[in-house]
Amino acid sequence: MKVAKFGGSSVANAEQLIKVGNIIKSDPKRKFIVVSAPGKRFAGDAKMTDMLIQLGEAFHNDDDYELYLSAVMARFSEIIEGLRVNDDIYAEIETGIKMALAAKGSMESKMDAIKATGEDSSAKILSAYLNSVGLSAYYINPQEAGIIVSDEPGNARILPESFDKIYSLHNEEGILVIPGFFGYTKDGKLATFSRGGSDITGSIIAAGVKAEMYENFTDVDSVYTVNPNIVSHPKEITTLTYKEMRELSYAGFSVFHDEALIPAFREKIPVCIKNTNNPDAPGTLIVAEKETSEKCVVGIASDTGFCSLYVSKFLMNREVGFGRKLLNIFEDEGISFEHAPSGIDDMSVIFRDKKFTPEKEKVVVDRIKEELKVDTVSIHRDLAVIMVVGEGLVNTIGVAQKATTAFSNANVNIEMINQGSSEVSMMFGIQAADLNDAIQSLYTSFFS
Amino acid sequence: MKVAKFGGSSVANAEQLIKVGNIIKSDPKRKFIVVSAPGKRFAGDAKMTDMLIQLGEAFHNDDDYELYLSAVMARFSEIIEGLRVNDDIYAEIETGIKMALAAKGSMESKMDAIKATGEDSSAKILSAYLNSVGLSAYYINPQEAGIIVSDEPGNARILPESFDKIYSLHNEEGILVIPGFFGYTKDGKLATFSRGGSDITGSIIAAGVKAEMYENFTDVDSVYTVNPNIVSHPKEITTLTYKEMRELSYAGFSVFHDEALIPAFREKIPVCIKNTNNPDAPGTLIVAEKETSEKCVVGIASDTGFCSLYVSKFLMNREVGFGRKLLNIFEDEGISFEHAPSGIDDMSVIFRDKKFTPEKEKVVVDRIKEELKVDTVSIHRDLAVIMVVGEGLVNTIGVAQKATTAFSNANVNIEMINQGSSEVSMMFGIQAADLNDAIQSLYTSFFS
Repeated sequence: MKVAKFGGSSVANAEQLIKVGNIIKSDPKRKFIVVSAPGKRFAGDAKMTDMLIQLGEAFHNDDDYELYLSAVMARFSEIIEGLRVNDDIYAEIETGIKMALAAKGSMESKMDAIKATGEDSSAKILSAYLNSVGLSAYYINPQEAGIIVSDEPGNARILPESFDKIYSLHNEEGILVIPGFFGYTKDGKLATFSRGGSDITGSIIAAGVKAEMYENFTDVDSVYTVNPNIVSHPKEITTLTYKEMRELSYAGFSVFHDEALIPAFREKIPVCIKNTNNPDAPGTLIVAEKETSEKCVVGIASDTGFCSLYVSKFLMNREVGFGRKLLNIFEDEGISFEHAPSGIDDMSVIFRDKKFTPEKEKVVVDRIKEELKVDTVSIHRDLAVIMVVGEGLVNTIGVAQKATTAFSNANVNIEMINQGSSEVSMMFGIQAADLNDAIQSLYTSFFS
Repeated sequence: MKVAKFGGSSVANAEQLIKVGNIIKSDPKRKFIVVSAPGKRFAGDAKMTDMLIQLGEAFHNDDDYELYLSAVMARFSEIIEGLRVNDDIYAEIETGIKMALAAKGSMESKMDAIKATGEDSSAKILSAYLNSVGLSAYYINPQEAGIIVSDEPGNARILPESFDKIYSLHNEEGILVIPGFFGYTKDGKLATFSRGGSDITGSIIAAGVKAEMYENFTDVDSVYTVNPNIVSHPKEITTLTYKEMRELSYAGFSVFHDEALIPAFREKIPVCIKNTNNPDAPGTLIVAEKETSEKCVVGIASDTGFCSLYVSKFLMNREVGFGRKLLNIFEDEGISFEHAPSGIDDMSVIFRDKKFTPEKEKVVVDRIKEELKVDTVSIHRDLAVIMVVGEGLVNTIGVAQKATTAFSNANVNIEMINQGSSEVSMMFGIQAADLNDAIQSLYTSFFS
């Protein structure tokens, strides 16, 4: 039995939903269907979730919200008409939205309820459509499905007791269509996951019902070996391990938020990334373990927005506790560090710079000077991080050589290398300005 | 004005001391002379310091110490006769040793005083010899010279107030001959530096008198680019910076204990390593700064006896403070860590394994499991660390490539790379068993 999740572009309009119907019909194992809210139909189009946020804000601010409501309903109407399903559903959706707008409670909880109508309506429409083409499908509300979450509006976390409840669904007859993105607190209050949370719902359902596979339908054929915005038409990855996926996601692979997959990973459920627009393509399979091959590098990920702080102090390595004290200052200031490589008399701390405001920088630098009596401290922004990822890489002679040769060929200076801490990746730090050249050259070395 | 320090092999017998006399005579700037105790005259010979330790222990244990005393005096007698200096000095040395044996005080302090007679006697003999060949030389006791140290027998540290006192020596007439290895506490008690402490005395005197150079005479022509026990007849290093020296010394360069040079480094005094047996060779100059050249790698150092501890924990990188907590456990257990590279969900801690007993290992591993709830923790002993060292290395494209290619050519797997924390070095971790192959290959790549 499979759980299939369809993302925003897969439910953006009637045409896409018809494809979804065909996909579900083609494999009777697809028994649990999780859907997002309608996404963009074309570049520049609005996503339903954003439209609902605008609606909610207008209503809250006593602006003319009717205009926004009409736009929302027009999108749903277009879908309903295109699928030729019963018109009653239109009224049902409109009532749902109006109830969410009129509900009492905190602003955050209200916004959660308004946003959730996007996924909820998608699920109702798809369920009606599946029935219209002869499948036995049932809409099921997340509360009924057993998705119990923490009381953190906009950032809810699944509670462990959910999984037993969800497991009881596995005996249900027919196809269950579940809206993604939200659950209910123990007190019955709706709360959404973080943005992109339909992936989380799919993963939770897959873990709960102990599915044989969690299929994640998007608009790309597979996960690529490298960012297609940097290298055109890069090779596809056929199989990835969870660990490889984690490392790739860390540095900018944006097919989906890898942490969404954690519930599925924990139950060792294989995850398949597939394309709604090309369902016959094999997609990318993400598994707990795979046999290692000689060509061990599976992908190269990269991300910008890193910052490094360098300190040097004569005889640092004789000072027990220096590293701990330095990291303590970062912790105190709420900055999560990524890496902290150290030499004899020097140490660097690498972190993402988005939270590192100039004010924060001053506090951190002053504290380091004051408390650690260092000789020098300097900050270096605009770093890019590149991860070369693959199981077995740590035991394969010559991978470091191949990678460093690629940087040399691209005439790119390597500011930082971190290998050996992770068993499946090798990390390089370079100037952000050199990123495209470096990635092109690495791709050529490892994949062509 | 220069400070010249002569090590044990340079004062091992009359023949060597005659060379020392010629070296001093050949450059009138050599005004401050620091000497070690007589070292080995041939492979398998005893060093005077070890003979004195045996003497002290025999005396302490009420064994027949006379035998040991005779052996000590026979060595001095041979030197005195060979140099044809006044016989009175023999009686003076014997009295000095007997007084040290008979003194009151703690066992440790007594042993310090007994050991110190080795250097003290060397200085007296050399001073007499220099006078006999027509130079105006004076023996000066460390107390008189102003070397005031902490009250830590066998491991004394120089006190900051010493330097002003020592500075007043710079106006003295003639050549001052100072025994290395010991100083006096504020209470006038003799205390020795750690073993090899004559280098420390030389460095302190150089810093104190603000010498234009500190010459360190040994029995090798220079510092070599790589360990001569691994690569035969390696190239010599002509100029090194302090930073480069620090990094090389860290990983096994044993020409001398680099921390001995700290007082000289602090005053930016150039240090020259020279050979008593070949004083015309230029030696190796160690300076504060040098111009960087294209061939930026100056040396390759290596050392064994490292250990790594690896931990992995799913979602580690979301846990603020994880790294700090891990290092805290090391600190609590008194283990100074060398490096702590980290990945997304994993972190390694590299440290020297000599203090890491099986009992300590158990405590550390148990605490990590208990307090950090990690998924896995493993220990990996028998690691070797290789440092590729050179100023400018961090900004030179292709150094990493050259190094990693050398490892590949030697068919050696790189377990760990740490680059970018230090500005002057690149660190590699490999299996200790692969060390010689790797060093040979690196030497070929960078120096031939």
